[in-house]
Amino acid sequence: MELARRLDLLGTETAFAVSAEAREYALTGAKVYPFHLGDINIPTPENIMDAAIKALKEGKTGYCSNYGIGELREVLAEDINRSHGTHYTLDNIAIQPGGKPVIGKFLLTLMNSGDEVLYPNPGYPIYESLIRFYGGKAIPYGFKEGENNFYLNIDQIKKRLTSRTKLLIFNNYQNPTGAESPHDELLQIADLVKENNLFVLSDESYYDIRYEGAPESIVSLPDMEDRCLILYSFSKKYAMTGWRIGASVGPKYIIDNIAKLNVNDESCTNHFIQYGAIEALTGDQSGAVKIIETFRKRRDKAHEILSSIRGIKCFKPNATFYLFPDVTDAMKQMGLADYNSFRLEALHKTGVSFCTRLHFGMPLANENRYYIRFAYSGINVDEIEEGLIKFKQFLEQ
Amino acid sequence: MELARRLDLLGTETAFAVSAEAREYALTGAKVYPFHLGDINIPTPENIMDAAIKALKEGKTGYCSNYGIGELREVLAEDINRSHGTHYTLDNIAIQPGGKPVIGKFLLTLMNSGDEVLYPNPGYPIYESLIRFYGGKAIPYGFKEGENNFYLNIDQIKKRLTSRTKLLIFNNYQNPTGAESPHDELLQIADLVKENNLFVLSDESYYDIRYEGAPESIVSLPDMEDRCLILYSFSKKYAMTGWRIGASVGPKYIIDNIAKLNVNDESCTNHFIQYGAIEALTGDQSGAVKIIETFRKRRDKAHEILSSIRGIKCFKPNATFYLFPDVTDAMKQMGLADYNSFRLEALHKTGVSFCTRLHFGMPLANENRYYIRFAYSGINVDEIEEGLIKFKQFLEQ
Repeated sequence: MELARRLDLLGTETAFAVSAEAREYALTGAKVYPFHLGDINIPTPENIMDAAIKALKEGKTGYCSNYGIGELREVLAEDINRSHGTHYTLDNIAIQPGGKPVIGKFLLTLMNSGDEVLYPNPGYPIYESLIRFYGGKAIPYGFKEGENNFYLNIDQIKKRLTSRTKLLIFNNYQNPTGAESPHDELLQIADLVKENNLFVLSDESYYDIRYEGAPESIVSLPDMEDRCLILYSFSKKYAMTGWRIGASVGPKYIIDNIAKLNVNDESCTNHFIQYGAIEALTGDQSGAVKIIETFRKRRDKAHEILSSIRGIKCFKPNATFYLFPDVTDAMKQMGLADYNSFRLEALHKTGVSFCTRLHFGMPLANENRYYIRFAYSGINVDEIEEGLIKFKQFLEQ
Repeated sequence: MELARRLDLLGTETAFAVSAEAREYALTGAKVYPFHLGDINIPTPENIMDAAIKALKEGKTGYCSNYGIGELREVLAEDINRSHGTHYTLDNIAIQPGGKPVIGKFLLTLMNSGDEVLYPNPGYPIYESLIRFYGGKAIPYGFKEGENNFYLNIDQIKKRLTSRTKLLIFNNYQNPTGAESPHDELLQIADLVKENNLFVLSDESYYDIRYEGAPESIVSLPDMEDRCLILYSFSKKYAMTGWRIGASVGPKYIIDNIAKLNVNDESCTNHFIQYGAIEALTGDQSGAVKIIETFRKRRDKAHEILSSIRGIKCFKPNATFYLFPDVTDAMKQMGLADYNSFRLEALHKTGVSFCTRLHFGMPLANENRYYIRFAYSGINVDEIEEGLIKFKQFLEQ
C-alpha cells in the first residue's frame, strides 16, 4: 500500500543512528564511551518508585482523566507558581506521556498550514520535524559564541520575523549548546514576542538542571503567562526518562484543546505513575539533589579534559548535561573536513561516541565553525575520564 | 491567540460528558449505577503487577527503543501467530502507549488528504474524529439486526465504495453493538478489501473478550496479512486500561513508519510496564480467566433483566462487555421522543447511567430504531441487579 505523502516531511532523531553504530562497534568487543545519549544512567529516587508501586497495588490501574489526576495537576501548578511567580491552577495543566508529546500538541493546537514557526538550530530535532510534518514553515534561528557561553542570535530572529510568523519555540537551558539566556536576553525575546503578537512554546525540559543560581523562565516576564505554553518534564530532574511523564502548562483555552487531543491520541497518561510524580514534587528532594551533584562532578571532569585538548574550545555551561565544544581546529589538525569522518574516526580509534552539530539540524548559512555534543548524563565520572583521555591522546597524537 | 482551524474538525468521546453528569448527580447523595463506563473495576492480575514492579526496581527507568523492548515484541508476535496463524516477527510490532494511539498513527501513515475511509457507525467515536482531523473523508457504514446479533451492512459498504476509498476500519468484536462477524462475513469483507485494493485497520481491542468458541480475525484470511494493521490492546483481557500499553502489528514498512512517528510523538512507551506486559502474555493466565468469568456473570445478569423489560429487545452478545438493546418501544411507552430526555430521565429516576447510540456517531439515513449501550465492565453483579431492577420498574410503571 502506498504510504501517505506527509511522511516525506517527517524527520527523526538521527542520534539514534549513532546509538546503533556504537552498539555495533561494541559487538566487536571494543569498549564504547557513550557520550551520544541524552538518557540518564542513575536510578529514579526510591521514594518516587515507592509511591508509584503503592498506587499500582492500591488499584490505580483504570483510566484517569484525560487531563491527568487532579492532585498531580494541583501540586504541579503550585510548584511552577513557586519557581516562576505564575498564577496557574489545575485548570492550566494537562498531564502527558512525556514532555515530548507537548511539542506536537502545541503545533496542532496553534499552527495553521503555512504559518511560520521560529525554532532553535542547533536544537532538538523534533521541533523542525513536526513543524514541517503538520504543514508549517520551519524558520531556524541560531546562536553566537560569547565569552563564556552561547547567546541567541537576536538579530537573526528579528530579520526572520515576517507577517506570517505566528509561533516561537524557545528552549532555555538548551539542548545541545547548554546555552542559557541572561535576564536581558529573555526581556529582548519577550519584547519581540509581544510586539509581533507571537505565541511561545517554552521547552523547560532542563529548567532544574542547573549548577549555580536560580533558573529564570520567559513565562515569568510581564504579560508573558498568557503567551506561553510550558513543556514540563519530570524526566531529567528526577531521572525518570523511561517513565514517560510530563505536562502541558498554559492558558486554559489551550489546555482544554490539548486535553481534547489527549482523548483522541492516548486517552490518558498511565494512571499509577502519576502518584510517583506527586511524590517527586512534594516528597523528599534528596534524590534530585544527588542527581544534580552527580551531573556536576561529571560536567567538571568532562570539561576539564575537553578544554585541555589542543584544537578544542569548550565552554562550561551552568545548565543541562551537555557540552558543545568547538572542534574546528582539532578537525583541521587531523586533516578531516567533515563531521561524519571525524565522528567515526574517533569512535573506532578511541571508543568515544558522540553526536555532532548535524544531529541538531542543518548548519545555517552564516556558520563556519564545527561543533560536537558530549552528553554526560549516561556515563560515570571514571569512564568519562578514561574515555576523554583516550580522545585527547587521539587528537594530540 | 487564535487556535488552529483544524481543531474545528476534532471530535471527542462525548461519553465523558455522561460520566460528568453521573458524577454530578451522585454529588446530590443519589446512588448511581455506572453502565456508561468502558473502564474495568477489576484489579490487574498480581503476577503482572509484580513483573512491572520488579523491572522498576531493577532500574528499567531509562528510555527504551521507540519500537518497544525486543523481548515483548517477540513474545507478542508469537502470541498473535498462535491465535491468528500469522507469520509476524518482532519487526512487525511497535509498542504504543495504549491501543488507541494506533488509530491516529494508522491514518497518518496511510491516509492522504481527501482519501475516503470507511468506518463503523455506531462505532468508537475516535475513528471519525481522527479521519476528519487529519484531512480524510469519513464514510460511515452501519449494522443490521439479525436473529440473535447485529450483522454488518455489507450492501451499504459496497454502495459506499468509490475510487477514492483507500482504507477500511474494521472492529470485530464491536463497541458498542457487541457484534461479531461470522466466518462468512469476514470472507465477504476480505474479498471487498482485495477487489478494491484497500488497507484495513483491524481494531482487535476486544479480541479475547469472548464467552464461547475461538475468536477469528480478518487478518487470518488468505492474503490479508499484508493488507492489515492490527490494533492490539492489553487493556481489556488483563484489566490494564490505566497502564496505557498496546501495539501496532503489521507489515514492516508500515511499522517502521509508525516507529518513526513514535520518535516524534512520545519517544517510547513507559519502559518498566513493558515487563508487566511480557508477564501478561507468558505467565500464569488464571487472572485473565477470572476476568472473563467475572464479565460472563455480569453479562448474564444484565441480559436476563434487560431482556425481560417490556418494550426492550436485547441480544446476548458472545463478545465484548457491552449490551446494545433496542429501546424504541420502551421510549414510545414513556412518551419520550429523544435520546437525551430518556437518558436523563432514567438517570434522575433510577440512578442508572448509560450511553446512547448518539455517543457512537450520528444515526445513518436508514436508521429508525433507538438503541442504548450498557457497559458491564465497571459494575459488580449485585449492583447490576439492583440498578436494572429499578430501571425495569421505571420503564414498566
